[in-house]
Amino acid sequence: MTRTLGIIAGGGSFPITVASTAKERGERVVGVGFASDTDPSFQAHCDNFSWLKLGQLGRLIDFFTANHVTHVVMAGPINKPKALDLRPDWRAARLLFSIKARGDDVLLRALTTELEREGLTVVAPHLYSPDLLAPEGVLTKRKPTQSEREDVEFAWTLSQSLGQFDIGQCLVVREKIVLAVEAIEGTDAAIRRGGQLGGPGAVVVKRPKPTQDKRLDLPAFGLKTLQSMAEVGATCLAFEAGGCIFFEQREALDFANAHGIALLGLSPGA
Amino acid sequence: MTRTLGIIAGGGSFPITVASTAKERGERVVGVGFASDTDPSFQAHCDNFSWLKLGQLGRLIDFFTANHVTHVVMAGPINKPKALDLRPDWRAARLLFSIKARGDDVLLRALTTELEREGLTVVAPHLYSPDLLAPEGVLTKRKPTQSEREDVEFAWTLSQSLGQFDIGQCLVVREKIVLAVEAIEGTDAAIRRGGQLGGPGAVVVKRPKPTQDKRLDLPAFGLKTLQSMAEVGATCLAFEAGGCIFFEQREALDFANAHGIALLGLSPGA
Repeated sequence: MTRTLGIIAGGGSFPITVASTAKERGERVVGVGFASDTDPSFQAHCDNFSWLKLGQLGRLIDFFTANHVTHVVMAGPINKPKALDLRPDWRAARLLFSIKARGDDVLLRALTTELEREGLTVVAPHLYSPDLLAPEGVLTKRKPTQSEREDVEFAWTLSQSLGQFDIGQCLVVREKIVLAVEAIEGTDAAIRRGGQLGGPGAVVVKRPKPTQDKRLDLPAFGLKTLQSMAEVGATCLAFEAGGCIFFEQREALDFANAHGIALLGLSPGA
Repeated sequence: MTRTLGIIAGGGSFPITVASTAKERGERVVGVGFASDTDPSFQAHCDNFSWLKLGQLGRLIDFFTANHVTHVVMAGPINKPKALDLRPDWRAARLLFSIKARGDDVLLRALTTELEREGLTVVAPHLYSPDLLAPEGVLTKRKPTQSEREDVEFAWTLSQSLGQFDIGQCLVVREKIVLAVEAIEGTDAAIRRGGQLGGPGAVVVKRPKPTQDKRLDLPAFGLKTLQSMAEVGATCLAFEAGGCIFFEQREALDFANAHGIALLGLSPGA
């Protein structure tokens, strides 16, 4: 039987990549999007599509069920500050009521449990785009300096600890001083703030939280991340190999090489 | 013998308060200040004074020793982003070289050890201004709502954990979502960022880190903190009673009452 894939589409081109790959594999694609986040051109890549408002969980499940969806993928970021204004339907409200904290991980895990209770299988979006997983090693012409490596090591350990509290997917550090901790503002804003305050030479570390369900929401970076770094003179980006999505790899590497930024993929236990 | 108090003066009026109290108590006051931070009028409150540059640790110790200083107080904040540009003399360089991380606590503890090695006793600035220690209980006309109390509780626990890593003296939270974690940008910037992103109704939590040496650097808040909160519609400030400095208390309470902000002092174990 043909698999019917339900795509919950956040921002950017990732949902389109997933939809295209799924269709190449002969799957049927049913998508939902959010006016606040989803690229309108995503619709055209779906066999059936519906616009939802954030918080319409009952409607999401009804739409997927009516369309015989068996597997679900979440792809692309949801703008978190806007998400704070969601108006939950009774089903979303019950879910929100049942959980104590409301960090990303907790919310996504609760949503996943709810979908799986309906017989839907939640799968990782990178199963539809394995090329996007960030590779290990130094990816750029320039290698990190000794001092950058020390800052990366410092931030790497700290990031592991912070992640336990469902915050801190991105840290900006210079000379072992924490310049910025990302909370709800997003990676680019955290990089620009830390870099502006700390001056040139900062390192950026991005990795999943230790408890993060890698099916649900991998940290992502790409050309825009490197442009933000270049704006404030940040010089090194370290990330977890196999644990981050790396978008626009060719353009991003060209940009990094042109600006002398070092990219370093580390294994999780590094 | 008359005690000679050395004051290492950061920004604001706190160094002046300490100097005045010390002189009322018959102590001799020897001060150092930094052009980047210290109010120039502080000079007039000292029996002897010298301008230093950040990082001139050898010169600081020589100046205090030559002036027969026996006790040292650090009062008032040092602008951390500017402090990143410090040019350490050999003595400061040796100190920086000897420590692994460079968060506030680690730096201040290392500095204290260095001063005490010279026979100087480091004392808490609030010993010269006990009235400034933040009191316990609800200080405003309005009490925190149930929902604000839940957010405070959430942030309080998180703040305890973050503090172990020498970051996060201030957290901004709404509906159990972390809107901002303060790193190097300062409390006001963290409040404005979190409040702008998260919308009205955010709570702000400020407390010392669990490992913080309370002689050295207590978190502080005052009228400006409340003005930043009002700007973005943050509605509740919770702080550790006896563990924070509360400046301009009368003006700050008037302002909080006029803007419906609730102030809540909690005991450390709350």
